[in-house]
Amino acid sequence: MNRSQDTQHDQQPARSSVAGLLGEIAGVGTDPVRGGYSRPVYSPAEADLREWFIEHARRRGLDPQVDRNGIIWAWWNPSGGPLRDAVVTGSHLDSVPGGGAFDGPLGVASALAALDLLEVDRLRGNGSAPSRPLGLAVFPEEEGSRFGIACLGSRLLTGTLDGARAGALRDADGVSFAEASARHGLDPGRLGRDQEALSRIGVFVELHVEQGRGLIDLGAPVAIGSSILGHGRWRLSITGEGNHAGTTLMAGRRDPMVAAGAVIGAVRDLARARADARATVGRLVPVPGGTNVIASRVDLWLDVRHPDDVVTAELVAAITVRAEEISALEGCSSSMVEESLSATVDFDADLRRRLAATLPDAPVLATGAGHDAGVLAAHLPTGMVFVRNPTGVSHAPGEHVENDDAEAGAGALAAVLRDLLAAGPTRLG
Amino acid sequence: MNRSQDTQHDQQPARSSVAGLLGEIAGVGTDPVRGGYSRPVYSPAEADLREWFIEHARRRGLDPQVDRNGIIWAWWNPSGGPLRDAVVTGSHLDSVPGGGAFDGPLGVASALAALDLLEVDRLRGNGSAPSRPLGLAVFPEEEGSRFGIACLGSRLLTGTLDGARAGALRDADGVSFAEASARHGLDPGRLGRDQEALSRIGVFVELHVEQGRGLIDLGAPVAIGSSILGHGRWRLSITGEGNHAGTTLMAGRRDPMVAAGAVIGAVRDLARARADARATVGRLVPVPGGTNVIASRVDLWLDVRHPDDVVTAELVAAITVRAEEISALEGCSSSMVEESLSATVDFDADLRRRLAATLPDAPVLATGAGHDAGVLAAHLPTGMVFVRNPTGVSHAPGEHVENDDAEAGAGALAAVLRDLLAAGPTRLG
Repeated sequence: MNRSQDTQHDQQPARSSVAGLLGEIAGVGTDPVRGGYSRPVYSPAEADLREWFIEHARRRGLDPQVDRNGIIWAWWNPSGGPLRDAVVTGSHLDSVPGGGAFDGPLGVASALAALDLLEVDRLRGNGSAPSRPLGLAVFPEEEGSRFGIACLGSRLLTGTLDGARAGALRDADGVSFAEASARHGLDPGRLGRDQEALSRIGVFVELHVEQGRGLIDLGAPVAIGSSILGHGRWRLSITGEGNHAGTTLMAGRRDPMVAAGAVIGAVRDLARARADARATVGRLVPVPGGTNVIASRVDLWLDVRHPDDVVTAELVAAITVRAEEISALEGCSSSMVEESLSATVDFDADLRRRLAATLPDAPVLATGAGHDAGVLAAHLPTGMVFVRNPTGVSHAPGEHVENDDAEAGAGALAAVLRDLLAAGPTRLG
Repeated sequence: MNRSQDTQHDQQPARSSVAGLLGEIAGVGTDPVRGGYSRPVYSPAEADLREWFIEHARRRGLDPQVDRNGIIWAWWNPSGGPLRDAVVTGSHLDSVPGGGAFDGPLGVASALAALDLLEVDRLRGNGSAPSRPLGLAVFPEEEGSRFGIACLGSRLLTGTLDGARAGALRDADGVSFAEASARHGLDPGRLGRDQEALSRIGVFVELHVEQGRGLIDLGAPVAIGSSILGHGRWRLSITGEGNHAGTTLMAGRRDPMVAAGAVIGAVRDLARARADARATVGRLVPVPGGTNVIASRVDLWLDVRHPDDVVTAELVAAITVRAEEISALEGCSSSMVEESLSATVDFDADLRRRLAATLPDAPVLATGAGHDAGVLAAHLPTGMVFVRNPTGVSHAPGEHVENDDAEAGAGALAAVLRDLLAAGPTRLG
């Protein structure tokens, strides 16, 4: 990491730019094979980023703590009041394999930059110290790229996912989430719903790079999120008969790879036939996976999203039936297992109105990507701010944010936080 | 390994059964995920098997040596004459991922068992000591499952593959063959053609489990090999545009996985349209390979075989064109790279006649599988003996040989070796 001079330990830091903050971590977790970044949760790269955040929080006089689910919390509480009805912002630092530099880290860096803007306000005596605490949060395994379930940290926090079930999840090397958590200094027996941590949060706003082309087309640097498409992950296993690639005649084969190839085409065709649906096979593993071996089984993962949860379910059902038909034609069998499913989330309407009043020029956009703000939305008012991505590409090295847009994003986030900190409790119920 | 009592160190071992020998290594390199065995070259499992062979050779009074390409040689030379015009038998101990127990080890165990039969002959004073030496050989990386090129040991020995090129081959973890060889105690600078080792061999006979159903249909335990189908491996890379699986509309995608799915179907259809052709995609790697990521590239490996090398070339050309067409339809591009290619091999006709005279009841079968005997065939007379596989399955856990058939195989091999040892030099040229 390249520590710039302006981040010396100091209770009154100079204001950091988002680009400057991200520049410090530009060399962490680069992937020489895939390009971009591979920062799986609790890998050395992601652990370095977590340490980087903790250090930045400390330099700002905060006392960051890692909770029992691995979420990092740093509280800015100038009034010294109780940690209740807090305004929380943040995002994640893990990435997909070969991902971009902004998905996650932009929200964390913008949270730090926004905090600096609020601190400058306070030091200048602009208005009274906010009575509500501000929390900065970093969530683990948002991408689900190591243990298979996205938003794992917020699912554990809220009890959406059982701690024991999460602990048993295994990565590609067979390491369980419990083991990985323990190696990271956590007690895996304490994974799971954390009512105390949850009850501190009054409202959560996540800033994130836009993962589509909405803001390009609208010509605006910042948008307010309206909803998250319902989405889920399914594992389809197609089982045939493993055999020798050279000695087995074409006619006698029960090759699950041939079935998988046809299923991939069917997934695309079935998704195309439904407006607004997205269905993707991005991960596929033939077993045993030798060049001169007809596979005995192919596992492939299906990512399906649609604004209408009924359509998502119907599309997955149609894919399941089609996969069975295709597999049967090849003398194979198939089975579909749901690994995760999130309903479409409409962000809190009152909060959206507040954000729109604070950011009157920002358009309102739905997103097809899942976020911790979506998981938390079932428990408290949440909202999102998106920052323009001039390539429209995400989960790939081409993902980008211009420095000016990143600054506009941090400014918008600071304005939103300022407004919420000055407001009364937003906590539901 | 389960050492049975009859294998105590002893210059005059009791005769080992093939089943007994294979029973000793039944626990080495089992694959709990894929089933069967995963014994990649120079892995701990394969190294254990190599040590097991070396120990068995020593117990039989031989002095096994590993040559500069990693081939193990053990010489039985009762007459004490020069190591020239030797009769050599053997096979390999590495496996494909999740392979069977017999592909390779059956030939090595049968070589040991046949040696025991010859030794019993000698001790009983049946005939004079053979004037020609008998060599037992174990070849590394026959499957090509770790470094991508099959019959790597015999290709190096014969100079079919350049030592520097072989040394630069890398496994899935990025370890080069040079590094793996060095870790195994070899000097990677000395990899390559070994004229001295090659010049010792007068004739090579490899016993191997049959990898098809020929002997099932013919009702015989043992066959003589006639030829090896021409075969090769190609890597097809399809490049598209990586992006987010949730935010990227179906219409805007350039998804190489969709193209790969269609290519797999085309490979099968194009192969089916050509009698006797086999074409297989058993290995496929999406990059980056995340569930919620549209792949930016898909690499898949093609195994193509046909008795007529012209048809093999024409089939690969047709697949290449079709892959380009399919990729273009998806907004992707494709490129095909040949990784290895072996022409059809007809085993030495004189040697085949000798084997047929020695084994008059054995049918003659061609095979679709590559073997070190095929690589050596360009340099000296080689032949093969196949042993019945009652499942017809190979490169998979279901591969099998009955104990009686294994004994029949070792007996047939001993008869062949006895005949060749008694004969004059068979060396070509």
